[in-house]
Amino acid sequence: MPYSYETDGAAIYAESFATIRAEADLARFDRDEEQVAVRMIHAAGMVGLEKHARFSPGMVAAARDALEAGAPILCDARMVSEGVTRKRLPAANEVICTLHDPQVPDLAARLGTTRSAAALELWRPHLAGSVVAIGNAPTALFHLLEMLEDPECPRPAAIIGCPVGFVGAAESKDALWAAQPAPCLIIEGRLGGSAITVAAINAIASRAE
Amino acid sequence: MPYSYETDGAAIYAESFATIRAEADLARFDRDEEQVAVRMIHAAGMVGLEKHARFSPGMVAAARDALEAGAPILCDARMVSEGVTRKRLPAANEVICTLHDPQVPDLAARLGTTRSAAALELWRPHLAGSVVAIGNAPTALFHLLEMLEDPECPRPAAIIGCPVGFVGAAESKDALWAAQPAPCLIIEGRLGGSAITVAAINAIASRAE
Repeated sequence: MPYSYETDGAAIYAESFATIRAEADLARFDRDEEQVAVRMIHAAGMVGLEKHARFSPGMVAAARDALEAGAPILCDARMVSEGVTRKRLPAANEVICTLHDPQVPDLAARLGTTRSAAALELWRPHLAGSVVAIGNAPTALFHLLEMLEDPECPRPAAIIGCPVGFVGAAESKDALWAAQPAPCLIIEGRLGGSAITVAAINAIASRAE
Repeated sequence: MPYSYETDGAAIYAESFATIRAEADLARFDRDEEQVAVRMIHAAGMVGLEKHARFSPGMVAAARDALEAGAPILCDARMVSEGVTRKRLPAANEVICTLHDPQVPDLAARLGTTRSAAALELWRPHLAGSVVAIGNAPTALFHLLEMLEDPECPRPAAIIGCPVGFVGAAESKDALWAAQPAPCLIIEGRLGGSAITVAAINAIASRAE
């Protein structure tokens, strides 16, 4: 059986984004937010995701400015760091995931938390002015909030908080939204994950569609 | 503000899977399929995903037997290959993603298709008895079906077909389901993606929850 399908990558993107803009309810977003929301919907394959997206004022500009100034991107999981499209980054930004650092298991045991959370302790030297992308572990987002309770802890420029799942995900994102230690973007509730998080980074990194 | 949340990884998994089993409609799955469906719902953060899951008869056993016999796992995207939990694999199975092979851009130009699809040409030496995991590109799944139209092309032992999105995703999965060149698992429609695909592999690789 012969198969008929679009094989031009640019045409696939254009048609995908046109479909999303025709179907999704994007009216409440400003231009910057809209572009990020469209790409997140695209990654999820799910119109309706936009209902759960919340951007604090100026979040996209804060994150974009930081990337243009060379900020590193700090990721909680390898699926996030691997997904970032390097050629979209404006300043050959470093993409850092410390989860598999050999110090992490001991740190987790000592701190009495998950490896995903403990790994953030190794972010401290990179945290000032960074863009944080948490797309997997609720415990990582809670741990970040705890670190930022300390006024001595360096501040990221922006936080994408999109952990996914059934235990702690909704609560950790509610906690981020309540505390707002930096401009932030969340997907409320259980939805989230690495693909959606990567899509936000890739949209913020470059306006190119 | 002090945060109160579960920090024990095993407890988080157990509570997550119990919530999913309480909320999702899993009655139509056999025991093997149920375990895979639960983990896919977990990765998506979405009860209801199970409505879109279709397993061909014996798919999970075919894929598990292949992995136990040492089959490689062939992935269309780095987010898929990075997500596979190596310590769950029964035979230190090779996890292969050819997308960033330097031959791929020329292959794509020559074949007039996407890089995601062209990369599958480099799977040929590994394809016999493999477990295929397509979690991103509809064009990759279509290209696989085209390769398997040739009776000389080696057969994988099982195919996880979960590309995501708005152009070709639903169609490519319908085409896989119609052709069934090997035992297969699909998520019908637009939903899919790397996290869901990785969850299926991780569930098939080990029954441990």
